[in-house]
Amino acid sequence: MPDETLIAYRDSIDNIDAALVFLLAERFKVTQKVGAYKASAGLPAADPSREHDQVARLRALAVTAKLDPEFSEKFLRFIIDEVIRHHAAVQR
Amino acid sequence: MPDETLIAYRDSIDNIDAALVFLLAERFKVTQKVGAYKASAGLPAADPSREHDQVARLRALAVTAKLDPEFSEKFLRFIIDEVIRHHAAVQR
Repeated sequence: MPDETLIAYRDSIDNIDAALVFLLAERFKVTQKVGAYKASAGLPAADPSREHDQVARLRALAVTAKLDPEFSEKFLRFIIDEVIRHHAAVQR
Repeated sequence: MPDETLIAYRDSIDNIDAALVFLLAERFKVTQKVGAYKASAGLPAADPSREHDQVARLRALAVTAKLDPEFSEKFLRFIIDEVIRHHAAVQR
């Protein structure tokens, strides 16, 4: 017999995951444009002060959302690492 | 002189990141309910067939969104690892 309670929770998780995937796709579209723009404008790829601002901002938003701020920072670094991998792959 | 092009891209990234943080907070609320429900119903915490389905589904969605399917799988595992860490912390 299917567990209706569990199914309802999982349907919500699946909906949220779909939204996350589409948002991530949109985010990578923007970071690809940033990479191309920085290359054409002769700007350095990395910007430590920007990254510092992003971490501080996301941690503050995480508190508002009642999400572990440590996790929000880990999450941002996970995403940024992927962006750097993309940029490195483009340069090869 | 501020670079208006770069600022506009970064504003979009910041908006997307805020949406990601609020969605992740919502996702953890659901997985916390799942953890509590499984414990009360005597269900096992891990469910390999569910995880297999989630990976297949997210990879297919990633293709639709023109996101690297490998990355979508890595992303899901990153999130699931955090959920497992939460559950383990609750059990201690």
